Amino acid sequence: MYTEKYLFDFTRQVFMKMGCPETDADMIARVFMAAEMRGLPSHGIIRIKDYYELWKSGRINVKPGVRIVHETPCTAVVDGDGAVGMVAASRSMEIAMEKAEKLGTGWVSTRNSNHYGIAGYYAMMALKKDMIGISMTNANPQVAPTLSVSPMLGTNPIAVAIPAGRHEPFVADFATTPIARGKLAVAEKKGEKVPFGYVQDREGMPSDNPAILKEGGSMLTLGGDYLHGSHKGYCLSAVVDILSAVCSGANFGPFVPPSVAYLPVKEKKVGEGTGHFFGAMRIDAFQKADVFKAKMDEWIETFRKARPVEGIESVLIPGDPERRKEQEIRRHGISVLPVIADELKQIAVELDVDFSVQ
Amino acid sequence: MYTEKYLFDFTRQVFMKMGCPETDADMIARVFMAAEMRGLPSHGIIRIKDYYELWKSGRINVKPGVRIVHETPCTAVVDGDGAVGMVAASRSMEIAMEKAEKLGTGWVSTRNSNHYGIAGYYAMMALKKDMIGISMTNANPQVAPTLSVSPMLGTNPIAVAIPAGRHEPFVADFATTPIARGKLAVAEKKGEKVPFGYVQDREGMPSDNPAILKEGGSMLTLGGDYLHGSHKGYCLSAVVDILSAVCSGANFGPFVPPSVAYLPVKEKKVGEGTGHFFGAMRIDAFQKADVFKAKMDEWIETFRKARPVEGIESVLIPGDPERRKEQEIRRHGISVLPVIADELKQIAVELDVDFSVQ
Repeated sequence: MYTEKYLFDFTRQVFMKMGCPETDADMIARVFMAAEMRGLPSHGIIRIKDYYELWKSGRINVKPGVRIVHETPCTAVVDGDGAVGMVAASRSMEIAMEKAEKLGTGWVSTRNSNHYGIAGYYAMMALKKDMIGISMTNANPQVAPTLSVSPMLGTNPIAVAIPAGRHEPFVADFATTPIARGKLAVAEKKGEKVPFGYVQDREGMPSDNPAILKEGGSMLTLGGDYLHGSHKGYCLSAVVDILSAVCSGANFGPFVPPSVAYLPVKEKKVGEGTGHFFGAMRIDAFQKADVFKAKMDEWIETFRKARPVEGIESVLIPGDPERRKEQEIRRHGISVLPVIADELKQIAVELDVDFSVQ
Repeated sequence: MYTEKYLFDFTRQVFMKMGCPETDADMIARVFMAAEMRGLPSHGIIRIKDYYELWKSGRINVKPGVRIVHETPCTAVVDGDGAVGMVAASRSMEIAMEKAEKLGTGWVSTRNSNHYGIAGYYAMMALKKDMIGISMTNANPQVAPTLSVSPMLGTNPIAVAIPAGRHEPFVADFATTPIARGKLAVAEKKGEKVPFGYVQDREGMPSDNPAILKEGGSMLTLGGDYLHGSHKGYCLSAVVDILSAVCSGANFGPFVPPSVAYLPVKEKKVGEGTGHFFGAMRIDAFQKADVFKAKMDEWIETFRKARPVEGIESVLIPGDPERRKEQEIRRHGISVLPVIADELKQIAVELDVDFSVQ
C-alpha cells in the first residue's frame, strides 16, 4: 500500500525528470492521484509508463506553449502544442472558467493534446467557483458506430459536475460505452468472459470474448445493441468527438492518435493531436447561488429517498460511488499491482528517481 | 393520407380557437408537423387531444407572457407563464441564439412550460444561423434511477444539431431511455411483448410486459441494466433534469406535472411547470465557418464510409433516419390512425373547425 503523498511525489518527479516544468508536473500528478483516490486506477499511475514511452519516442512536448488560437467573449480554441493532456486540459478549463466569471459561461475546445486522464477532474475544477463544469474528450478508436464493424470512435467520456449546498456535489463521469476499456483488459487477464453487449467480433456478431479487439472486433456504444438504443450511445459519442475535434481542429474519430507508444503514429492526419471540450457555467447565471444550491440539495435528497430495489441500501447520486471509494482508499492506502509497481521501479531506475516496491 | 398543409392548417386553427394568438398557433403547428414529417407521430398530432384536454381543464395559458426573469450576457432564465410548450421553447431558443449572435454562445433554462414536442425542432433552429443547437427537457416521471423501483425521471430527451457544408446536418435527437414511451404503447396495443431491458416490474425485476407501468413498474434508463451501464443513462437523464429544472426553477424529477389532463395536478410542487434547457453556439466562435463546415463534411464522409455489418447498406449519420422518413412522407402523405382521426374530428366539431376523416 502506498500513501497518496508518496505516489504524488513520485509522479511529480518522474514528469520533472522528463523535463516538465514543476507546475506542470504538479498538475499531472494531481490528476493521476485524483484517479487513484476515486478508485479509477485504470486512469491512474498505470498510465505513467504510457507517457514515459511516448516521451522516449519524442511524441510528447514537455515544454509546451499552450495557447489560445481563436476566441470570442465566451469561447476559445486552445492549442495544446503536443502537451501532456493534463497540462493542456487544466489550462483550457481555467480559460473556460475565466470567461464564465465575466460573462456567465465559458466554452473551450482544445486540439493538439494527448490523453488527459479522468474527465471528471476538469469538470470538478468548476465546483469551487460555484460553477457547473463540463468536460469531454475524444480518444483512440476502438468503438464501432451502430450497425458497423469499423472501430471509429473512442470511449469518449462525458463529465458533468454540479455544485450543491450542504450535500456533496453531483459528479457524473462516464464513458459513452457500456464499460470502460480497462474492464475488458481485467477480464482478459483473469481469463473471464464478459457479458454480451460490450463487444462484437470482426463481423459485428455478438461476442463475450474480452480479447476480441485483438481479432478485429470492436467495443459497442452505450445501449449495447440497436434494440437497446446503441444508436443513442453512438449519437453521444459522436457529439463528444465533434465538439472536441471539429470545433478545435484536432483529429476526429478514426484519426485520433494512439495514447501508447507501441502503436505507430497514424499515416493520415485530419487535425492536430487529440481533442477535448470544456464548459463552465456560473450557477448564479441562472439562479441566485444560494437558491440554486438549496434546490440542488432538495434534488439530491429526493433522489436519495427513492425506493431502492431489494438488497440495495439506497439509490446513489452520481459521485457517490467514487466518494465511497475515496474514503476507503484514504483509510487503507493505494494498492498497486505488483506488475505495475515493477514497471514504475524500472522507470524510476532509468530516470534516477526513488521508488520502493511495496 | 393527409398533406402537411392540411394538417398544419387544422392544427393552427385548433389552437387559435382555443385562444392562442396566430403567431403562437403557427409555431405550435410547425413543431407538430416537424414531428409528423420526420416520422415521429408519437410527438405529432396525436398530442393535440392532450393539449385540448389540458386547455379545457384550465391547465394551459393560451395568452402567456413568456419573459426573461434573470439574465447574464450569455444566459437567461425564461418563465413560460404556463404556455403551450412550443411557444415557451421556441422563444427560449431564439433568446439563446440572439445571445450567441453577440457573444459566441447563448444558454437558456426555461420554467413554467409544458410538453414541447420533439426536442430536435429547437436544436435545428440554430442550423440556419450557422450555430450548433442544443435542446433538452424534463418530462413526467416514469423512469427509475439505476437500482431503484421509483419512477423519478422522464424520458428526458437530448437533441444536438450541428451544421455541415454540402452534406445534410448532423441531428441527434434521442430520449435517455432505450426506447421512447410511445413504443411501449404500440407494443401494448398490438398485444406484443417487448425485449428485456426496457422496463421493470414494481419490485425492479426484469419484465417484457409493455403494460407494466400500469402495475407499478417503470421504464429503465439508457443502458438497460446496471451491467450494461444503465447508471450512465441515469446520469444523462439527471443532468437533463437539473439543467432544465434546477437552473430554471421548474419542477424536477418526480414533481414534473403530467402532460395529460386525465392525470391529476400533483399535490407537491418544487417549482413552476415543466423545464427545458437550450444552447446555441456559433460555429465561428471556434473555427471560421467554412473551415468548420468542410471538416464536418469530412467527418460525415468518414463515418458514412465505415464498413457496415452484413446486410446493411451503409452506416447512418444522426439525422439520416428522419430525413429518409421525411422523403417517404413527402411522397405518400401523412397517415393518421383511424382512432386518432376520430378524436381529431370530435375536437373539430367541438371547436367548429373543419376536419375530414380520410
